[in-house]
Amino acid sequence: MDKALLLYSGGLDTSVMIKWIQENLSMDVATLTLNVGNSDLVAIEEKARMLGADPVFVHDAKDEFAEKFIAKSIMANGSYEGYPLSTALARPLMAEKAVKYAQKIGAKYIVHGSTGRGNDQVRFEVSIRALDPSMQVLVPVREWNMMRKDEVEYAKTHGIPVKLDGKYSIDENIWGRSVEGPDLEDIGKGVPEDVYEWVVPPWKANAEHTLKIAFDGGIPSEIDGEKMKLADLIVFLNTLAGSSGIGLIDHMENRVVGLKSHEVYECPAATVITHAHRYLESLILNRNEAEVKMNMDWQFAKFVYGGLWHDPVMNAVNAAEAEFNRDISGEIKIRMSHGIMYIEGAWGNSFLYSKDLINYSSMAFDQRASKGFIDIYGNATVHSHNRNPKMVKEVQGSSVEF
Amino acid sequence: MDKALLLYSGGLDTSVMIKWIQENLSMDVATLTLNVGNSDLVAIEEKARMLGADPVFVHDAKDEFAEKFIAKSIMANGSYEGYPLSTALARPLMAEKAVKYAQKIGAKYIVHGSTGRGNDQVRFEVSIRALDPSMQVLVPVREWNMMRKDEVEYAKTHGIPVKLDGKYSIDENIWGRSVEGPDLEDIGKGVPEDVYEWVVPPWKANAEHTLKIAFDGGIPSEIDGEKMKLADLIVFLNTLAGSSGIGLIDHMENRVVGLKSHEVYECPAATVITHAHRYLESLILNRNEAEVKMNMDWQFAKFVYGGLWHDPVMNAVNAAEAEFNRDISGEIKIRMSHGIMYIEGAWGNSFLYSKDLINYSSMAFDQRASKGFIDIYGNATVHSHNRNPKMVKEVQGSSVEF
Amino acid sequence: MDKALLLYSGGLDTSVMIKWIQENLSMDVATLTLNVGNSDLVAIEEKARMLGADPVFVHDAKDEFAEKFIAKSIMANGSYEGYPLSTALARPLMAEKAVKYAQKIGAKYIVHGSTGRGNDQVRFEVSIRALDPSMQVLVPVREWNMMRKDEVEYAKTHGIPVKLDGKYSIDENIWGRSVEGPDLEDIGKGVPEDVYEWVVPPWKANAEHTLKIAFDGGIPSEIDGEKMKLADLIVFLNTLAGSSGIGLIDHMENRVVGLKSHEVYECPAATVITHAHRYLESLILNRNEAEVKMNMDWQFAKFVYGGLWHDPVMNAVNAAEAEFNRDISGEIKIRMSHGIMYIEGAWGNSFLYSKDLINYSSMAFDQRASKGFIDIYGNATVHSHNRNPKMVKEVQGSSVEF
Amino acid sequence: MDKALLLYSGGLDTSVMIKWIQENLSMDVATLTLNVGNSDLVAIEEKARMLGADPVFVHDAKDEFAEKFIAKSIMANGSYEGYPLSTALARPLMAEKAVKYAQKIGAKYIVHGSTGRGNDQVRFEVSIRALDPSMQVLVPVREWNMMRKDEVEYAKTHGIPVKLDGKYSIDENIWGRSVEGPDLEDIGKGVPEDVYEWVVPPWKANAEHTLKIAFDGGIPSEIDGEKMKLADLIVFLNTLAGSSGIGLIDHMENRVVGLKSHEVYECPAATVITHAHRYLESLILNRNEAEVKMNMDWQFAKFVYGGLWHDPVMNAVNAAEAEFNRDISGEIKIRMSHGIMYIEGAWGNSFLYSKDLINYSSMAFDQRASKGFIDIYGNATVHSHNRNPKMVKEVQGSSVEF
Repeated sequence: MDKALLLYSGGLDTSVMIKWIQENLSMDVATLTLNVGNSDLVAIEEKARMLGADPVFVHDAKDEFAEKFIAKSIMANGSYEGYPLSTALARPLMAEKAVKYAQKIGAKYIVHGSTGRGNDQVRFEVSIRALDPSMQVLVPVREWNMMRKDEVEYAKTHGIPVKLDGKYSIDENIWGRSVEGPDLEDIGKGVPEDVYEWVVPPWKANAEHTLKIAFDGGIPSEIDGEKMKLADLIVFLNTLAGSSGIGLIDHMENRVVGLKSHEVYECPAATVITHAHRYLESLILNRNEAEVKMNMDWQFAKFVYGGLWHDPVMNAVNAAEAEFNRDISGEIKIRMSHGIMYIEGAWGNSFLYSKDLINYSSMAFDQRASKGFIDIYGNATVHSHNRNPKMVKEVQGSSVEF
Repeated sequence: MDKALLLYSGGLDTSVMIKWIQENLSMDVATLTLNVGNSDLVAIEEKARMLGADPVFVHDAKDEFAEKFIAKSIMANGSYEGYPLSTALARPLMAEKAVKYAQKIGAKYIVHGSTGRGNDQVRFEVSIRALDPSMQVLVPVREWNMMRKDEVEYAKTHGIPVKLDGKYSIDENIWGRSVEGPDLEDIGKGVPEDVYEWVVPPWKANAEHTLKIAFDGGIPSEIDGEKMKLADLIVFLNTLAGSSGIGLIDHMENRVVGLKSHEVYECPAATVITHAHRYLESLILNRNEAEVKMNMDWQFAKFVYGGLWHDPVMNAVNAAEAEFNRDISGEIKIRMSHGIMYIEGAWGNSFLYSKDLINYSSMAFDQRASKGFIDIYGNATVHSHNRNPKMVKEVQGSSVEF
Repeated sequence: MDKALLLYSGGLDTSVMIKWIQENLSMDVATLTLNVGNSDLVAIEEKARMLGADPVFVHDAKDEFAEKFIAKSIMANGSYEGYPLSTALARPLMAEKAVKYAQKIGAKYIVHGSTGRGNDQVRFEVSIRALDPSMQVLVPVREWNMMRKDEVEYAKTHGIPVKLDGKYSIDENIWGRSVEGPDLEDIGKGVPEDVYEWVVPPWKANAEHTLKIAFDGGIPSEIDGEKMKLADLIVFLNTLAGSSGIGLIDHMENRVVGLKSHEVYECPAATVITHAHRYLESLILNRNEAEVKMNMDWQFAKFVYGGLWHDPVMNAVNAAEAEFNRDISGEIKIRMSHGIMYIEGAWGNSFLYSKDLINYSSMAFDQRASKGFIDIYGNATVHSHNRNPKMVKEVQGSSVEF
Repeated sequence: MDKALLLYSGGLDTSVMIKWIQENLSMDVATLTLNVGNSDLVAIEEKARMLGADPVFVHDAKDEFAEKFIAKSIMANGSYEGYPLSTALARPLMAEKAVKYAQKIGAKYIVHGSTGRGNDQVRFEVSIRALDPSMQVLVPVREWNMMRKDEVEYAKTHGIPVKLDGKYSIDENIWGRSVEGPDLEDIGKGVPEDVYEWVVPPWKANAEHTLKIAFDGGIPSEIDGEKMKLADLIVFLNTLAGSSGIGLIDHMENRVVGLKSHEVYECPAATVITHAHRYLESLILNRNEAEVKMNMDWQFAKFVYGGLWHDPVMNAVNAAEAEFNRDISGEIKIRMSHGIMYIEGAWGNSFLYSKDLINYSSMAFDQRASKGFIDIYGNATVHSHNRNPKMVKEVQGSSVEF
């Protein structure tokens, strides 16, 4: 009998799939559950076994997620039109693990629980095929005709515990919490307050915090002088910054499949780290680097959002980002209060910013050079007006009011 | 005797220049004072006459500034690395007027009061030369050797009223207030609270406001249903949003002359309008437009920041921006509280966002098309791995932990 | 009975479709044949009637193709990785006409003859849906299982005249001839000489021609002083330049569907016009315009190649291109010989190039300004090395060989 | 007495400088002559000694130039608006060596012979300051008032051998020959034939050659199966391709100082290598890589042309380019005839191009997936027309001619 490896979350959809694949496709179902956030691996493992999955794999991947995926996004200020790429970063990791476990057990099929309307199907399937073109992907939600009540019915008749999800569709990992659902679809209304779980809404957030984040080569490495593993540092900041109201994102998004969707993200750690990283960059990188990096950051976000983590173009993007981050070391002191971050100081050995150069009474910058600079800098613009002197004529011809 | 037209602000530097030019360059000095913010034209005019300038021009240019300059920036979400371009937008207007008045009175020289370390000298001089290549520009601050105490001495001996500026160097117009100065130069410290004048610091801002802004073709046209001239709408929003703590920007900037400088901006209206404009765009523009516009917005900001408003490239940039904004009409309801803006609703006739398309139970989007889409969308990525199967091998060869 | 409008070329595939749709889909078939090149509309009309199509529309669209489609591409130096977009420019025109005629006769279906492996299906279908989302598109080749011999058999049994196509798959319009086919697929071989029809291969092309092309606002308007309609000018240049060996393009292409394909293009007029247009631009546009236009040109090519002519982003792209071309007027003298073009002179009233400015003994450019320029221009680069003085140390530490 | 190190070419300008600096600046003059092309180091060394320079350094840098500078440009298809960057690539090498030798002998000054109107002054001075900010640069041509006849007079009275340069101003290295001069300044005329030295004009070039170039990681490594050092390979190709009429470039250029200048380049090897490299890329890189690399290539060219070789941004650009070139290995067979290059075959192990995928009768690509692909790919475009149905209405309202 053929084997299928199911990416199993423990929720209703993927629980139904275990039975459905056994029944309809006559395959043995193995499950793989990855923890990149706060999953209860023990309970999920037990449930999978109870539903007849075999083997049942569970795998804590938080550190790998932080060090191989989130770290690259921090270096690139990962932001797709304002979205910090949380779910988008986890999908390629899941695809890698799924391929690895499927190959291990000789499964020819990988099954995922995403729908046919979203981005995640794209991310899973492109990565899986890129890693192993012989692997086939099954997507029951795209094929079957079950509505929610059919699923519940099916679950009941097949002995699957039904714990109904809330009214929102949610994906979580340590880099962020993504929320969508019918209550967000009426754009004539604001975001309902019950969406928020990680972040105390700013108008209620009374906890003010000030801390120092140290970066080493673009990656946050210490909080207030204490070295932390990246995953731990992120989890710590999620709590702290969330309590100060930091990290709410109300986002109108262009999905890969060409739909616009209204999403809410809660990303306290991502918000703080990116703000500090950008500020440090602004002190260190010169304007040539800043302009080229701005474009590279966009490429990074566009490809990752679009499910192309495993495209070879990412080797070049990441190589450039690594260079841009080589000197991004230093410390940023940041105050978080009612949803806003204030920079309270910055220290480092590689700052391009120099108090001595900028000071008005400084002699390090000879302002008499400016005349020659401007004359030549402006040449291309000025000469262009010889080409078309209309504008000057308009100025000359216009009436002057006193 | 040759005539010089001085761009006169009424402050110490340009007041000293009137006398200095008369004495040292033996020229007649005319002055031009433009109001693009809150200048007291009557007092300034009187002072100029008292110092012997003749003729003395004053000109209220707030509406022209709003409609010809700020409006274009709103359409382009004008932001240079985070700075809303306030001063940068006013300089080309001043250059236009200066050329016009200088030509009117037959002056061969235009004099401005900017230093040789900043961006404004570049903006004035490139625009003036572009508009009238025969015009000569004098920049006393770059040439003379006066320190602040020399200036005060000079003023006293020449009967110039000395009202000392505060510790910050400030430029203001209706689109924003720019602050720099020695107290901002120590990057190891946060921004001192006495910098702020327009914005109540968020941690003290108790005034909460909710309002609706209507846009017509990319330009804000109404507040809460009341039509307003753009300049009036901006002035109104500065007060309102400022009282809610909106519009503080702490910015490390790459000047045209290659220096980094630490600037603080207060831009309440610009912040609110840009936020609302971007949100409206996200509902209306498709992803192709969003990506190309992102680049055009950057070009707009880069050229305007760099003093190239009058470069012919701006004709193309502005033509593209006008097209992108043609359908940007609708209304945004926005709540402002403690420095944060919340979108509370959006309405319009040209939204690409559609509740019907995105809803999970909708049939308008056939999710079975997704399989074919993903297969083909991923081809370029997947085939690339035939080229270099190393990654797959690494996955296969790696150990699997249970 | 439902009606289908077939885009009819007169070839075997679309002739078979007339009968096949009648038989298999029980629809009335109307045909539309557009001449954008050298189609024999009379013969095609007769053949369509003979096969039972009704009504049979034929439409000469050469001038509209030139003035509304090719003209925009000329302004944008339309080139997708080296391919002058010939077929890609005609497809959206055909889609517009197909929608118009289908609406005219109340047809709910438009049928095209492209395969499921290429770009044209994308271009037809996106444009048709954009123009009329209610219109349905039928693509028999993607659905049926006929191989070439099945088609011939089907034709014979249905009274369809069989004139076998040659060994290449060809698409032609006045802007170019596209060739693909099995004989081009072995990349270990060069292009077979029998591919070429429009261009005498350079090594055999003995005809040398010299001519002057005048441009007006970016569009070629005269040859050797004689005003010509754009379509006529293009047809004229195809013959003339083709006889001088101009216009062969050997191209490895990234199709929209993610495949690479080896294509040969013959585009004599497009090659000459683009070369002259670019040269004129290089004399007129300043470097800011040149850099922004380079990106716009790429966007134009990418979207048109990808079938997105009717995407609203094109309004912005074309608006920018129109501005860039406003001053592109003048005359270029060009010699064509053995496949190479030589510029023999250029004349115009709006050249930014100025002999007087560049001449070494000229005083119009004050070279003493250069020192100040370079000092400030280099600041960002030079200061960056304070940040990381490793490179200087490497220089100092390295051994010097005599 | 202070010491100055002069970058000495052996020509009239720099020979005069030796004496002029001794006389006018009372410095000891050392000279450094680098061979990056075909310089006669023995004769130049002798001349420098004869004029009193001490020490006199000569240094053959051809291999270093090829392997550290040209190689990077090959990977980036180095081309600034069509110019293969020959001179621009050599200047930063010269700056590196000048700083090294100047530090070696304790010279505080480096002297170069470039004028104040061109790009080379920028390249020398930015690189020198970046490598050693304490180093001062002297540029006699920008300071003195000598015209050509004054120089000749000065030379005669100071015992400097006068060998007048020809009518063109020329710079040569193995990557190309750059020509400018008064005879090229009249843009109403074509390029005079006496400009050409390296390339037989195509209309006279009777030598036809066919050869195979092998690339390894983006760098040409063999000709016709024979391994060659890069510098030798380039020199070999200059002769061979030049005899077939390859490598003439007629170029209107935007200099860094804002002037347009008419330049002629002869770059046979650069032209052949770049053509082959690009073709190989088109077979290997996917479209995502191709698009991002196109932008990186432009950044490379813009920064190198603009004298910013030593800007840290180049670390990121070069890191990305190295990744893009990792798989660019294979062999290209190329026929050169009368100025044109024809690809006669290509072989390699990492081609993304696949005959099997593209063949029309192949089953490897399932064309039925295309419908789903196009439906979703077109969504953003199609939905946008709901936003503004004007276009459809225009189509519906237009008259149809029969």
